[in-house]
Amino acid sequence: MSDTLTEVRSGARADTVTGLLAEIASIGADRTRGGYSRPVFSSAELELREWFIAHATRRGLDVHTDANGIIQAWWHGSGAGAAGSPGADALASGDPASADPASADPQGAVLTGSHLDSVPGGGAFDGPLGVASSLIAVDHLKRRGIQPVRSLVVAVFPEEEGSRFGVACLGSRLLSGAIDPVRALALKDENGDTFGDLARRNGLDPERFGVDTGFLDSVSSFVELHVEQGRGLIDLDRPVAIGSSILGHGRWRISIHGEGNHAGTTLMEDRRDPIVAAARVIQAVRDIARSHPFARATVGRIVPVPGGTNVIASRVDVWLDVRHPDDLVTAAIVELIRGAAVQLSAEEGCSAELVEESFSATVAFDAPLRDRLARVLPDAPILDTGAGHDAGVLASMLPTAMLFVRNPSGISHSPEEYAEDADAEAGAVALADVLADLIA
Amino acid sequence: MSDTLTEVRSGARADTVTGLLAEIASIGADRTRGGYSRPVFSSAELELREWFIAHATRRGLDVHTDANGIIQAWWHGSGAGAAGSPGADALASGDPASADPASADPQGAVLTGSHLDSVPGGGAFDGPLGVASSLIAVDHLKRRGIQPVRSLVVAVFPEEEGSRFGVACLGSRLLSGAIDPVRALALKDENGDTFGDLARRNGLDPERFGVDTGFLDSVSSFVELHVEQGRGLIDLDRPVAIGSSILGHGRWRISIHGEGNHAGTTLMEDRRDPIVAAARVIQAVRDIARSHPFARATVGRIVPVPGGTNVIASRVDVWLDVRHPDDLVTAAIVELIRGAAVQLSAEEGCSAELVEESFSATVAFDAPLRDRLARVLPDAPILDTGAGHDAGVLASMLPTAMLFVRNPSGISHSPEEYAEDADAEAGAVALADVLADLIA
Repeated sequence: MSDTLTEVRSGARADTVTGLLAEIASIGADRTRGGYSRPVFSSAELELREWFIAHATRRGLDVHTDANGIIQAWWHGSGAGAAGSPGADALASGDPASADPASADPQGAVLTGSHLDSVPGGGAFDGPLGVASSLIAVDHLKRRGIQPVRSLVVAVFPEEEGSRFGVACLGSRLLSGAIDPVRALALKDENGDTFGDLARRNGLDPERFGVDTGFLDSVSSFVELHVEQGRGLIDLDRPVAIGSSILGHGRWRISIHGEGNHAGTTLMEDRRDPIVAAARVIQAVRDIARSHPFARATVGRIVPVPGGTNVIASRVDVWLDVRHPDDLVTAAIVELIRGAAVQLSAEEGCSAELVEESFSATVAFDAPLRDRLARVLPDAPILDTGAGHDAGVLASMLPTAMLFVRNPSGISHSPEEYAEDADAEAGAVALADVLADLIA
Repeated sequence: MSDTLTEVRSGARADTVTGLLAEIASIGADRTRGGYSRPVFSSAELELREWFIAHATRRGLDVHTDANGIIQAWWHGSGAGAAGSPGADALASGDPASADPASADPQGAVLTGSHLDSVPGGGAFDGPLGVASSLIAVDHLKRRGIQPVRSLVVAVFPEEEGSRFGVACLGSRLLSGAIDPVRALALKDENGDTFGDLARRNGLDPERFGVDTGFLDSVSSFVELHVEQGRGLIDLDRPVAIGSSILGHGRWRISIHGEGNHAGTTLMEDRRDPIVAAARVIQAVRDIARSHPFARATVGRIVPVPGGTNVIASRVDVWLDVRHPDDLVTAAIVELIRGAAVQLSAEEGCSAELVEESFSATVAFDAPLRDRLARVLPDAPILDTGAGHDAGVLASMLPTAMLFVRNPSGISHSPEEYAEDADAEAGAVALADVLADLIA
């Protein structure tokens, strides 16, 4: 990671993507895990929000945080109506915006942006690359003397990773109605704080969470730029790709209940140890995924309760991530895992239940929009991705597209995640080219 | 747990063990895990220390916190020399005691007490029962008009469970020289804070940590009362037992290193997933333990790094607890587990290392002292235990004995841990009987 940061810093120029990322290189650095830990509403993520608002304001964009905690930075188009100011920043002022953005752009604004939160110990690019590239794309457009007809909105979505409250793309799900606000507000982090509590503490009004048809009706398309999270562009030797689809994916929690007891005084034959059951379930998850081509199933998080070295756990929560291009196969794999969990746990004297925490169906991005991007970027290959994105959630509501920037490590959600300076700048230029076409 | 608390509360009388425990029934209650989480130097543990100091002071005992953070409450015997006050409480005043207790009791004081810290989500009795019983035993002795010849010292040992810094019986290990203070001071909790930092922040002087021969030379015996952590007294239908030995036990950390990556974009065949390796190791631990009669091996704590649901972990730490009456067998079991961990991890493209965090050899308590207790308590059966205790650590330095009080659940390190009111009071009476004999 330090190499990455050093390189970012040495290339720092405020008018480049790399320069912008250098400004935030120390925010949320995780000295224990390496990389960055920037969960939503952490001091790191709040600092990043302030950083974005400052940059957007400096560029003359009209910034407010909407009812769902999404920051919107508007460059009003000449075809837009006489838009009132969308109001002050809710997170900063506690005074949520009340303007009706639908009246701001009857022709339909173009939405871009990404997220600033991270997985624990994640990389510097997943999320921030798209945000920084959007800001630099605005610079390119202004430098080219472009006067947008449609408005351009740069957005920052909260809790894209779901690393704090367990549901990925929480901001875009609230915006689009893909999650019931009552359920979202009750989601708890590992300290037992609810999303609603944290939102209120940060100046948002939980009563106002939920689908925002006014905003959605005012937007005609969404283009999200993101660092690639696989090896597609490495193999093709190209800096930027256009997205075709997102693999269906979801997360499930398997709770295995046994009997907590003392590790020293309880004989092996008297135990009902849920960690042993969990270990067998984790192997079953891998074996089941391997027996289905194109499937990916992962346990990356396991939480024994109480979690002491000299204590047989009473319960273990095993978090499961499953993805497959065919949603029916994903569902079938999850059912196989559920069956294995119940059976293997019973064999250990334990009980298991599997609960869906979130699911996103396979998303094929809008074909006409994808083709329009391909005409603007004739050299960019078309790639699918196994990673979920806010673009995947919003694709059900409006035409959506993605751009991917080459990641020379092929690794993401890790400090190894990376983008070369030249590729990052090429990404911002490609985004500017695409936006110039869309806002004209 | 609420039944237990209700019962404790309903039986509350300030001059009973149950009454004393009722006073602390809300301190450190863990609403997430159930039971209590009272790690050393947490606000809960500090509050319990204050509670003990207040009760000891109210009983006229001479209280100070020694250089290792052990609270000592002295009832000076008539056979003791002209003892200076051992000084103010270090944790409260930051002014550690400097009196030389060796001069205080040339005949050798009698030490009793236990600990107040808990495992995460532990029960109400493991530790506090021994502390409360010691205070009530003092009441009984005074009520009987006993004037001690030898001094009596009621002690509270810090970090007995090792739940914060990973090494059990840390206070008694420092006192007896069983751990190098340099190593102890560098131990880190999960926030990355060292034991030394926390000790300094709580008014202790890390420079003064380490073996205290002056105190050890001044003590002639140690008797620790503890809730039973097995079913021995249930099966025998008796309230109180005398301890014969402690099973050898230790804790080891198995660190498995793989390759962190994105759960959605990384194909199953491209993975080096340390959680899958850890799952296989956990099964091997159980299988190896089962193949050795009397052996107990437990994984109660597993920490994937970074620990996100949509992230293949880069590393997993698996904490291992192994116990067997024969220390050679314990060592052989650990070596088998080490071999399995290395091999199974290699099969998953990962690497593994096993590090000893602590080890305590099997301890047979002092036979003459045990026989002396048996003469005082002729109805008490003699039982061994699989649980480690400060008494086990100090047994290498001075004659040591234990009393166990029946636990009707047979379960400990869990909210299910329990002692009936009548048994708790019987335990305190038995302890008073034993102490009366020893201090005469």
